[in-house]
Amino acid sequence: MPVPFVRHSEVDILIIGAGPAGLMCANALANARVNVRIVDQRASKLTTGQGDGISPRTIEVLQSYGLAERLLRESCQVHLAAFYNPSSTGGIELTNRTSNVTAPSARYPFEVALHQGAIEDIFLDSMTSLGVEVERSTIPTSIELSKDENELTDPTSYPVRVALQRLDKSEDEPREEEIVHAKFVVGGDGAHSWIRKQFDITMDGEQSDFIWGVVDMVPDTDFPDVRNKSLIHSNHGSSLLIPRENDHIRIYIQLEDKDVINPVTGRVDKQKMSPEQILATAQKSLEPYKLIQKDEILWWTIYSIGQRVASKFSIKNRVFIAGDACHTHSPKAGQGMNASMNDGHNLAWKIALVIRGWADMSLLSTYESERRKFALDLIAFDKMWSTLFSGKPLTEQNSDGVSPEHFLETFQTDFTSGIGIHYHPSVAVNDRNQELASGLVLGKRVPPHKFMRAADACPFELQDLLPSDFLFKLLIFTGEFSDPLQQARVESMVMDMQKPGSFLNRYATPSNSRFDIITIIKGQKERFDFLRLPTLLRSHWSKVFIDDTDATGSFGGEGYSYYGVGSEGALVAVRPDGYVGAITPLDHVGGLNAYFAAFMKILA
Amino acid sequence: MPVPFVRHSEVDILIIGAGPAGLMCANALANARVNVRIVDQRASKLTTGQGDGISPRTIEVLQSYGLAERLLRESCQVHLAAFYNPSSTGGIELTNRTSNVTAPSARYPFEVALHQGAIEDIFLDSMTSLGVEVERSTIPTSIELSKDENELTDPTSYPVRVALQRLDKSEDEPREEEIVHAKFVVGGDGAHSWIRKQFDITMDGEQSDFIWGVVDMVPDTDFPDVRNKSLIHSNHGSSLLIPRENDHIRIYIQLEDKDVINPVTGRVDKQKMSPEQILATAQKSLEPYKLIQKDEILWWTIYSIGQRVASKFSIKNRVFIAGDACHTHSPKAGQGMNASMNDGHNLAWKIALVIRGWADMSLLSTYESERRKFALDLIAFDKMWSTLFSGKPLTEQNSDGVSPEHFLETFQTDFTSGIGIHYHPSVAVNDRNQELASGLVLGKRVPPHKFMRAADACPFELQDLLPSDFLFKLLIFTGEFSDPLQQARVESMVMDMQKPGSFLNRYATPSNSRFDIITIIKGQKERFDFLRLPTLLRSHWSKVFIDDTDATGSFGGEGYSYYGVGSEGALVAVRPDGYVGAITPLDHVGGLNAYFAAFMKILA
Repeated sequence: MPVPFVRHSEVDILIIGAGPAGLMCANALANARVNVRIVDQRASKLTTGQGDGISPRTIEVLQSYGLAERLLRESCQVHLAAFYNPSSTGGIELTNRTSNVTAPSARYPFEVALHQGAIEDIFLDSMTSLGVEVERSTIPTSIELSKDENELTDPTSYPVRVALQRLDKSEDEPREEEIVHAKFVVGGDGAHSWIRKQFDITMDGEQSDFIWGVVDMVPDTDFPDVRNKSLIHSNHGSSLLIPRENDHIRIYIQLEDKDVINPVTGRVDKQKMSPEQILATAQKSLEPYKLIQKDEILWWTIYSIGQRVASKFSIKNRVFIAGDACHTHSPKAGQGMNASMNDGHNLAWKIALVIRGWADMSLLSTYESERRKFALDLIAFDKMWSTLFSGKPLTEQNSDGVSPEHFLETFQTDFTSGIGIHYHPSVAVNDRNQELASGLVLGKRVPPHKFMRAADACPFELQDLLPSDFLFKLLIFTGEFSDPLQQARVESMVMDMQKPGSFLNRYATPSNSRFDIITIIKGQKERFDFLRLPTLLRSHWSKVFIDDTDATGSFGGEGYSYYGVGSEGALVAVRPDGYVGAITPLDHVGGLNAYFAAFMKILA
Repeated sequence: MPVPFVRHSEVDILIIGAGPAGLMCANALANARVNVRIVDQRASKLTTGQGDGISPRTIEVLQSYGLAERLLRESCQVHLAAFYNPSSTGGIELTNRTSNVTAPSARYPFEVALHQGAIEDIFLDSMTSLGVEVERSTIPTSIELSKDENELTDPTSYPVRVALQRLDKSEDEPREEEIVHAKFVVGGDGAHSWIRKQFDITMDGEQSDFIWGVVDMVPDTDFPDVRNKSLIHSNHGSSLLIPRENDHIRIYIQLEDKDVINPVTGRVDKQKMSPEQILATAQKSLEPYKLIQKDEILWWTIYSIGQRVASKFSIKNRVFIAGDACHTHSPKAGQGMNASMNDGHNLAWKIALVIRGWADMSLLSTYESERRKFALDLIAFDKMWSTLFSGKPLTEQNSDGVSPEHFLETFQTDFTSGIGIHYHPSVAVNDRNQELASGLVLGKRVPPHKFMRAADACPFELQDLLPSDFLFKLLIFTGEFSDPLQQARVESMVMDMQKPGSFLNRYATPSNSRFDIITIIKGQKERFDFLRLPTLLRSHWSKVFIDDTDATGSFGGEGYSYYGVGSEGALVAVRPDGYVGAITPLDHVGGLNAYFAAFMKILA
């Protein structure tokens, strides 16, 4: 056997695992032009099955990276949810049809379904265009984190040492081992995370009692809601039907323990079950409707999921875990891929800013505080939801069964849409002056609204002015600039911002700013002359917006009122991930100075 | 000199000239998978200058070919028009700002500006993906049309003979001449059309008295409407400012005869003028505002345009002319490229259907009757508009000058949007039963409206269900299917359509239909079960739509009322180019049989 050759290399960030969490993170960092590598043990990319629901908030996030257009083109939109319950004549009947998404501020008021392989392709193609490829058939064999406190606190050091091994070399080829010295490592390596195990991070929680089967197929059916999300409680078990791209559907079916548990091991045994048996169970729960597969069953599995959250999401802010590596739960609330991608989205900008030297290492602590809190909320919701879903229907015989009303009510929260995610106060989320912009909630994402560009009355969605480009956005709500008193306040604010000690000057970089100034005035497009604004507020003609309807009067306007901003205006700092970070009055630029001083660094 | 080698070839359609008319036609025919070639004398594609305004209707047409998304991404949208007139203190002042597009039914209520080279690229890339390339540096040297009536009336014959010569061969290379035998030839070869001259087609009309200069530049300016369309009447001449992509603007400036007419020849002489002189004239008309060019002037020209229309648009329905070859007019109504592209759009499906053997040659006569009528209307509008634009402003000294009110009123017609185009009754446009669908005007394009897909409540724009795919669309407005009487009428209509002699059976092709059936029901998405419809009305689950709001109640609904369709329903045949062809009541399928019998052919 040839002697292994050891090669050493350095990288800013090494990501282990090219699933939704790892890919979201890698693509974001590639966009930030940060030096990133991503490895995966699989020899080729995923082509089918697995998680496939994208929530309204995740679509917004993908849009912020310019990826939603393709997602919407390729995927299947799910607008309605249909609820079926036992009928008095046996079988099931329609109880209710309702909007599938109940979050009123959702920009995309629907979920989309697309198989995970196609979603991963969207990231992979974007990364390729940015010069980053997944290194496949590659596994980490050891990981070590320096114990030297000086090294750990110096953001320019490489304190993580990971040995990588290629799995696709034949016995005869010289074995090449690579030792990667990384500033940061992200483990997006799934529910059985190797990284998590190396650092003895425990998973807190428990296994659920319910066992489910899943099949993907093209159906021949007379079930009227085959193209809607259908939530079915029957006297023959519960099932969940989700429409998919290309006329496919996916069905989740509750299975009986005796049919799937191996009596010797006490564990779920896939050998005991076949896709035909799963389908037969589904057919029973859907009676009197027919459900026949047109061709073969495309994919299937069975599972009983644990509802667990990792005890920590990071080791010394140098090694992070994300996605299934830090939370596992049932797929029925449609959150698996969404939680994972949003972990990556939350983490990427923080690492990028630290690597650029713009932010202090302390910013990285907010990854765990924000995302672990979310994961705990998710597990709590998932437990409640799974129990209701798997519960027997309320009948005369079963008086503590699940009532259709209670089930519907639980469905209609805005938790599953992702829109409700609310990060608590931290170094990155201020907790003052909420009353100045009650519709821009500190720690929540900026809700969508349309404004007109002042120079040309071209309508813009505000969310599209907040791309994930690693800049902080300053939304400057000037109020009525034509009111002389308000104009004076705006001009005074501009002077404050231009003072040497203000955050704008303090954190200025030689080539470009860390801030994108977006001015939103109150007024009428037919009357307002944007050239009257101080030049700081119009670095380019395209940076000034007006809270007015479009040229035909069909949409837009009332944005101040929607965001709860009064005539006195407000300054709003939006984080690079689209979440509201700080709000101050126009005459207190110092509030923003303090917000940024808490985590921003002056370039060395 | 080497002896020329003569090669003979056959092609269904040969297009001469790869400008907007030729490219629209070639791309459409490539989409139809028809055997088409296109040649152009220029060695390379256009990269700058020339016509650049795309009207709302043309955007809709491009969308029907799947090309609008890219156009909208690359272009500059023009939403507002600003009107400036002489102020009492000298110089100009803002009189009015108004919507740039006044057609209330426009799907895209704005114009877009993009240089012609970029627009041509959109077509060229689409054609490349369909396997058709422009053959450049190639000119026709002779054209002959057969005089044999049998040959001329046989759609499978090749009665046009065109000799082509390559211009890019060196003296030493063997000269290769090609004789192309074509079923049809389209001349999109510009204002000085060679094709038109070969057939002695006269241009009727006259030269205008007004001479204009044009410059493209990136301005440094304090003019508030530099990003809107600005129509300026000043005491120093009129000018028109149009914003463009990449911060560019284009300015049209009226010039004085003495500055541009060569006294010897009496003709416009570009040598007498420089871009700096044109800009200086513009600067004068814009006073008191400053207009300074930031870098060099990107493109410029001067012109005095003739307002002329060709006496015929076709020779024996075998050779056609399109675009500038058949109409020339001023660019100030923004119609040049639009008229040309819509010529190509109107002609392509007619030729494609004849070549497929689906339509009789007589259908081709409607090209001239529809497009020449439009061209005459365009010239009439352009004369009025140019005169108003070039006219001196109304002042105390000049009491028969142009009043701002009159100018604005003329601006606010829906002619320039292209939405108003109305083809008169012909073999392709029926004139009966308009009252059954008063909002779907026979001979006009189908206005946009959103409907929900019945199976999944996914919203669709009806125009997106009418792509330029060479099929006739049958919009079946069933009315309230849940009303038993109406249900009986619908079922009876379906039986009529399935009779052996009905158009559906008469013109059925072995592999696929010439018709796309789109069913639009009245009802509520929460209640309606689309599986109750007869199968003819739901060839696929995606073909049934419901006139209701979207799942969140934000938009949609009231489509029956918008289209003027009553509770009794209606059958509407839409031509492949998106124009309404025929309307009948549900109980008179015979009306559609008669409409199609007038030009459709049974496959041999």
